[in-house]
Amino acid sequence: MSTTPLNATHDANARSWLESANAPGADFPIQNLPFSVFRRQGSPEAFRGGVAIGDQVICLGAVAASGALPGLAGEAVQAAAQSTLNGFMALGPKAWSALRHALFGALKAGASGAAADAVKAALIPLQDIEHTVPTRIGDYTDFYTSIHHARNVGRIARPDDPLTPNFQWIPIAYHGRASSIGVGSGSQSQPFRRPMGQAMAPGAAAPVYGPCARLDYELELAIWIGQGNAQGTPIPLAQAEDHIFGYGLLNDWSARDIQFWEMAPLGPFLGKNFCTTISPWIVTQEALAPYRLPFTRPADEPQPLVYLDDAGNRAQGALSIELEVLIESAALREKGLAPARVSHTNFRHQYWTVAQMVAQHAMGGCNLQSGDLFGSGTISGPTPEQAGAIIELTKGGREPITLAGSGEQRAFLHDGDAVILRGWCEKPGFARIGFGESRGQVLPAIG
Amino acid sequence: MSTTPLNATHDANARSWLESANAPGADFPIQNLPFSVFRRQGSPEAFRGGVAIGDQVICLGAVAASGALPGLAGEAVQAAAQSTLNGFMALGPKAWSALRHALFGALKAGASGAAADAVKAALIPLQDIEHTVPTRIGDYTDFYTSIHHARNVGRIARPDDPLTPNFQWIPIAYHGRASSIGVGSGSQSQPFRRPMGQAMAPGAAAPVYGPCARLDYELELAIWIGQGNAQGTPIPLAQAEDHIFGYGLLNDWSARDIQFWEMAPLGPFLGKNFCTTISPWIVTQEALAPYRLPFTRPADEPQPLVYLDDAGNRAQGALSIELEVLIESAALREKGLAPARVSHTNFRHQYWTVAQMVAQHAMGGCNLQSGDLFGSGTISGPTPEQAGAIIELTKGGREPITLAGSGEQRAFLHDGDAVILRGWCEKPGFARIGFGESRGQVLPAIG
Repeated sequence: MSTTPLNATHDANARSWLESANAPGADFPIQNLPFSVFRRQGSPEAFRGGVAIGDQVICLGAVAASGALPGLAGEAVQAAAQSTLNGFMALGPKAWSALRHALFGALKAGASGAAADAVKAALIPLQDIEHTVPTRIGDYTDFYTSIHHARNVGRIARPDDPLTPNFQWIPIAYHGRASSIGVGSGSQSQPFRRPMGQAMAPGAAAPVYGPCARLDYELELAIWIGQGNAQGTPIPLAQAEDHIFGYGLLNDWSARDIQFWEMAPLGPFLGKNFCTTISPWIVTQEALAPYRLPFTRPADEPQPLVYLDDAGNRAQGALSIELEVLIESAALREKGLAPARVSHTNFRHQYWTVAQMVAQHAMGGCNLQSGDLFGSGTISGPTPEQAGAIIELTKGGREPITLAGSGEQRAFLHDGDAVILRGWCEKPGFARIGFGESRGQVLPAIG
Repeated sequence: MSTTPLNATHDANARSWLESANAPGADFPIQNLPFSVFRRQGSPEAFRGGVAIGDQVICLGAVAASGALPGLAGEAVQAAAQSTLNGFMALGPKAWSALRHALFGALKAGASGAAADAVKAALIPLQDIEHTVPTRIGDYTDFYTSIHHARNVGRIARPDDPLTPNFQWIPIAYHGRASSIGVGSGSQSQPFRRPMGQAMAPGAAAPVYGPCARLDYELELAIWIGQGNAQGTPIPLAQAEDHIFGYGLLNDWSARDIQFWEMAPLGPFLGKNFCTTISPWIVTQEALAPYRLPFTRPADEPQPLVYLDDAGNRAQGALSIELEVLIESAALREKGLAPARVSHTNFRHQYWTVAQMVAQHAMGGCNLQSGDLFGSGTISGPTPEQAGAIIELTKGGREPITLAGSGEQRAFLHDGDAVILRGWCEKPGFARIGFGESRGQVLPAIG
C-alpha cells in the first residue's frame, strides 16, 4: 500500500491570508482544500471545478485561464476546471497532489506572486454558488461494511440469522442506481418525493401498492474512484489506495417496506433507487493522511484472506472520521430551532477498509472507471445510539425516537423532514478538516 | 398502451434492390432495419450509427452528410449518425419511425431519387466493420422474469423454497454493472478472462480464493430504453412502450460459485460484473409489431396489481422471439465443426412483459435515461431442454450435457468455449426478422 505522507499541507500551524479559513471549527481550512463542481446560483453559466477555502470557492476555470500554475499543477488545473472532474481524476495521485500543493502555496499567509494573485482573483463566496454531481458517474456501487449495521438490520429482517455467513469474509456490495444521485447541501437541499411501491404486510395474502410507509436514511461515506483499471486486470490491495481520489458524505435513502418485500433473492432495487443524496465537496485522500488508523480484527474472528490483507492495510487502512445525523422536521424549521441530532459515530468502526473494498471490487476483473462512486455502506458504531439508520435506532419502528427541541416522535421519516449528514476529522496537533454536509428533504408521495 | 401498427414496412412482399436482403432466412431483410454503432474494422475513424440491410450496413454518417432525407427523418438521421445512439433515442418514437420508414422507402425495389442514391452510396459490407456498445449506458438493470428459470435455479440454491414469494407479484430486478458490457458477434467475439473470486465449498469452514469453477452463461434479451422520465415521475403502464427503443441479445455471464457465496443478502455482484456480452444490432420495437402476442396469466395464479395491468398489455404485451444457445468448444473450432446447440426457447414464456418491467422500474420515481439498458433476465421455457443457463441444463452441474459433434461433456463452461446466442422472429405471412448473434469466449483465469 502506498502511504500518504504527512507534509507541509498537514502543518496545523499553517494559516491562510483568507481569514475565514483560519476560523476555529471551519470546515475548509488551508489543510483541507476539497474539490467540487459548481456555478453561480441560478446562473446559466457552465459548471466547472472549484476548491473550497474558508467561506469561498476558488474557481478553477479562472485559475486555469490565468496560466499562473506551472508544470503538472498547471496541467491538473486545466483538467479540474471542466464541467466534470472525471478527466482530472484520471490523471492520478501525482497530478492531484501537485494541484493541491500549488493551491496551498498560493493560499498560505504571506504568499505573493502570479499564483497567489490568480487565486485571489478567482474567489467566489460559497453562499453565492450551487453545485452539481462532480463527476459523470459511470457506475455506483454500494457496500455493506459495518458489522454493527448488519447485525442491527439483520435482527429485524432475519431474526434467526442476523449476520449472513459471508459478512466476515467479503466486503459485501451491490450495484446501485447512478441516475438518481443528486447533490444536496445547505440552502441547496435535495428534495425528493416519497416513493410509491409494493409492500407485503406481515401475514397478508397479497401485497399492496401505495406510498412508502417506512422511509429511512442511511449514513454513508461517498468514496470517489480516481483511476480505473482495465477489464480483466484486478487491483492488488497494495495498489488500491492509488485509485481512491477522495471522500464525501452519502445518504442512501431507503424505503424499508418496499426493500424488504423485493430484495429476496437479488437484493435491493426500488427500495433504494428513487434518490441518493451526496455532499458537494470531495475531501482528498491526501488531506486525510493524519487521520489514518491501524486496521485490526479481533483474534477470535476470521482474518481476511491473503488478497485482502497486507502490512500497509494493517498499519493504516482505517480512517477516523466523526459523523453525525440530524433531522430537521417541518416544526423545527418553522420555529427556527436547530435540527435534532439523532446519532453520532465514527468511520473507524467499519469492518472493512476502503482499500479492501477497491481490491474486492476489481478482483474478478470488473473495470472501475475514473469518477465512479462507492457508498461505504451504512456506518453504525458498536452502541445502539451510534446507529446510522432510523430503522436501527427505533428497533424496526417499534421504539420511536424523540427529536430534541420539538419533542416530536419518529418511528420512520415524515413528509417535510430534512436529513442532514455531517462529517469532520480532528485530533490534537492537527488541523480540523470538515466535509460540509449532505442535506435532502422528503416531499409528499407521487400522485 | 400505444400500439405499433402494422404498416408498409411489415409487408412480407416488400423486396429491396439489394439482393442479399431478399435471401430466404436473411437476418436483415428490408422489414427489419436494426441500428448499431460501427466503424471499418481496425480503422482509427470515429464510430457512428448504422442500419443493417442484407449483408451491408448503411453508414448513417454518409446519409446525414448527403442531406437527402427531408423533415423529421433528416433530423433523426443527424442524431443517429453520432458515436452513440443516445441522442437519437431521446428524440422519441415519431423520429425513430420517420427514419426507419425513410430508409425503407429508399431501399425498396425500384426506389430512385436522392434518398435511394444516398443510401446506395453509403453501403459498407458487414464483413468489413466492427461494432462498439451502441449507447453511453447510464445504468444497466437486469431483470428476473422467467418463472421457469427462477424455479430451476431456486431448486439448486434454495431447495426448500425455490420460488421466492414476491416472484409472482413483482418483475424482480437488480442493478448491474455498465462498465464491463461489451459487444461480441461473429468474428468480433468478446473474449474475457475467467474471473477470480471467493467461494465457499459445502461443509467447508472457510472460503477459498481462486478461479471460478462454475462458469455459466445466461440467455437474455437486451432491452434499450429510448426515452427517459424525470426523477419523481413514474411511467404509467399505458405509456411504457413509448419508452422502449428496441431489442438485442444479452449474455449475462455468471460465476455461480462466487455468486451463490456472495449474494445473501444484497444480491449478485462479482458473480456477474466481470463481463456482459451484447449483440451489436438493436431491432426496433416497431419492426417487431407482427410478433406481439396476448399476455395472460393462468386463473389460479396471482393477477398483476392494477398498476401492472391494462387492456393493452393483456392484448399484445408479450413478444414471440425464437432464441437459441450454442457452445463452440476449442475442439469443435479446431475441427471446423459447427457450434453445438444446447437449448432453444421463446421469449413468449416470460412471466412479465417488457412494458411491465419499464413501469415497475419507474414506479417509485427512479429516472430512466435514453440509452439505458435492461436485461430481460434469463429466458428459460417450460421444458428442461429450454433452459437458458447451463446450471439449469445440468441440474447444478450434476448431470453434464454432451456437445453434438465432438461428444465432449460440459457441467459448466471450459476455457476456450465460445457461447453464441441467436434470435429471430418468423410466422406465416410475415417476413422473418433476425437479431444476429451475441458471441463471447472464455479465456483462462487472470494471473
